[in-house]
Amino acid sequence: MTSANHFELLATDGSARTGELITPRGVVRTPAFMPCGTSGAMKGVHWREVRDAGTDIVLGNTYHLMLRPGAERIAALGGLQHFTGWNGPMLTDSGGFQVMSLSELRKVNETAVTFRSHIDGVKVELSPERSIEVQRLLGSDIAMQLDECVRLPAERSDIERAMRLSLRWAERSKRAFETAPSGHMLFGIVQGGDVAELRQENARGLVEIGFHGYAIGGLAVGEPQSVMLAMIEATAPILPAERPRYLMGVGTPEDLLEAIARGVDMFDCVMPTRNGRHGMAFTRFGQINLRNARHADDPRPLDEESSWPSARSYSRAYLHHLVRSGETLGAMLLSEINIAYYQRLMRDIRQAISLGIFASFCERTRDEWARGDIAPR
Amino acid sequence: MTSANHFELLATDGSARTGELITPRGVVRTPAFMPCGTSGAMKGVHWREVRDAGTDIVLGNTYHLMLRPGAERIAALGGLQHFTGWNGPMLTDSGGFQVMSLSELRKVNETAVTFRSHIDGVKVELSPERSIEVQRLLGSDIAMQLDECVRLPAERSDIERAMRLSLRWAERSKRAFETAPSGHMLFGIVQGGDVAELRQENARGLVEIGFHGYAIGGLAVGEPQSVMLAMIEATAPILPAERPRYLMGVGTPEDLLEAIARGVDMFDCVMPTRNGRHGMAFTRFGQINLRNARHADDPRPLDEESSWPSARSYSRAYLHHLVRSGETLGAMLLSEINIAYYQRLMRDIRQAISLGIFASFCERTRDEWARGDIAPR
Repeated sequence: MTSANHFELLATDGSARTGELITPRGVVRTPAFMPCGTSGAMKGVHWREVRDAGTDIVLGNTYHLMLRPGAERIAALGGLQHFTGWNGPMLTDSGGFQVMSLSELRKVNETAVTFRSHIDGVKVELSPERSIEVQRLLGSDIAMQLDECVRLPAERSDIERAMRLSLRWAERSKRAFETAPSGHMLFGIVQGGDVAELRQENARGLVEIGFHGYAIGGLAVGEPQSVMLAMIEATAPILPAERPRYLMGVGTPEDLLEAIARGVDMFDCVMPTRNGRHGMAFTRFGQINLRNARHADDPRPLDEESSWPSARSYSRAYLHHLVRSGETLGAMLLSEINIAYYQRLMRDIRQAISLGIFASFCERTRDEWARGDIAPR
Repeated sequence: MTSANHFELLATDGSARTGELITPRGVVRTPAFMPCGTSGAMKGVHWREVRDAGTDIVLGNTYHLMLRPGAERIAALGGLQHFTGWNGPMLTDSGGFQVMSLSELRKVNETAVTFRSHIDGVKVELSPERSIEVQRLLGSDIAMQLDECVRLPAERSDIERAMRLSLRWAERSKRAFETAPSGHMLFGIVQGGDVAELRQENARGLVEIGFHGYAIGGLAVGEPQSVMLAMIEATAPILPAERPRYLMGVGTPEDLLEAIARGVDMFDCVMPTRNGRHGMAFTRFGQINLRNARHADDPRPLDEESSWPSARSYSRAYLHHLVRSGETLGAMLLSEINIAYYQRLMRDIRQAISLGIFASFCERTRDEWARGDIAPR
């Protein structure tokens, strides 16, 4: 059974694609980068800056939100978009990945995953049906099926078992989603670790079930970039061209270029905000560590040609001082600068694909990164 | 020897005064509240929000800034206003108070205070002359004399010794300041602990030396409010009416009303940002603890009639969630809401004094605080 299609491909350039995904709360231009509003907040960034930076859609974490403040509470308060004041398109994950990475005493059986909350130790059961229910309570525009992620490296037998369970959970998720309001979407997730044939089997199975979009999950969990790219190459051609493809939890700007070149449309990652909190800035000169003493007396901005005001107006010396002093403002400024850099990159990528010059755009962008930062003074 | 006067009294109402202080970087409307940009940043608040909240002038801490990033460095980078991007009027304290409260192995002699930095343990000497030099390097619009603060309660002999030393340091500070660019100001600081006659003796001595303005220091250090008010009452009448009076490190909104009624024109305090970081909001309903469970399901804003957007638009439930989750955004929102509340209060106070209705304004404001928060629902 197929689901209504809300995705429109506008242009392709090789395997790279640009398009629009129509959600109940607005249009998402793809390729799209989704900053992570984990617990209903973008760490250190006001929502208006998230939007001003060019963000169309953000990600909310089901695991965090179901534990605190609770899905039923958020529903009673008008849904996550109203609750947070973001008010734009929002994708929620299924909770599966955080159960694996954050909770204790995790037990998986056919029915559900049971775990203890990392906040208060309370025992929680998360089934595919409950995950969909939670995401619906949150008011998610795009929900994800519950899956089981396996840490890499892993035995093939473990990867296969988790993949098959995830596929059965995909069917149950689809059934549970059937009564969702029209316009809302459910994405299936391709698992299969670093085994191409398992990835392909899983992708075929998901396409047979039929989803609004397809995610590639269980990557960016410690494997080399080459493995990640090989898994995308093995999977993307099997996924229907007319549906959006989402690579979960990825990644660096370089990862984005590589994945987009292989046909991926959507990404999420904590990197812009997490690295910002650790004094790192993403720029066209590559990543810059503001903690470095070379910036202490440097009156120049991070990038005088940046489209983002804070990257043009504050000196490297000031940002260095804020980072060294542990001032919140340092994390705030670098986080917004990083989100703005990512979104500007996505905008330029969309434009390059539209113009059919994506390959040369990638080359130029990589050259700039490789040239590195401006010379110290 | 008198100093040029940059203060203009516009209206008085009883002992309360409203006026304008002309600094090299702009006009400060008094009574004025100065939020504390301790280390060159307002904790958790962007500078544009500090300004939008109605702030005319901020305070920078000489102690913090001389240790990191260093006064000479800030001077080379164009001064504190340019370095931080605040670009408005700035008052710097002398460093004396923080030496007392933050540093270790403090030793005071006639020449200077010697201490170890709380950051790296380096031994630093701060004399009245060096304090003025540092403040000039920072580019301070209003500098403070170096003084010695005594923790209360204290023996009268200790208070007296510190007061007399501070008075001698006032003279040295004045001499050191003589070559400052025109328009910049130096304030003397009245010490004397909780002993009215020492306060008065000190005030007379400072007036004889002649300063652009006069501060009342060494209060809000743990003594009861009644003692603080008695000390203001003992001191203010001795200070020249045509000069601004600054009560250092104060305080709660209630403290501000009381002190303004006794003729004080300027204040600084970390309370709006510090309490904001601890989940407390200042409102016309009094102080509200957002950590309290009563807010968990409350869709209402902090104050639907607030002039500050965040206090009107975000629900109490969301703020409660952010505070409970330790999300930076909670501290960011409450800090800006609190600064905005303080500045709105100051605006209303200035207006009430202009209209000659300050007493009834205070009564109405206290009634609102006393009525407390809106009923739970």
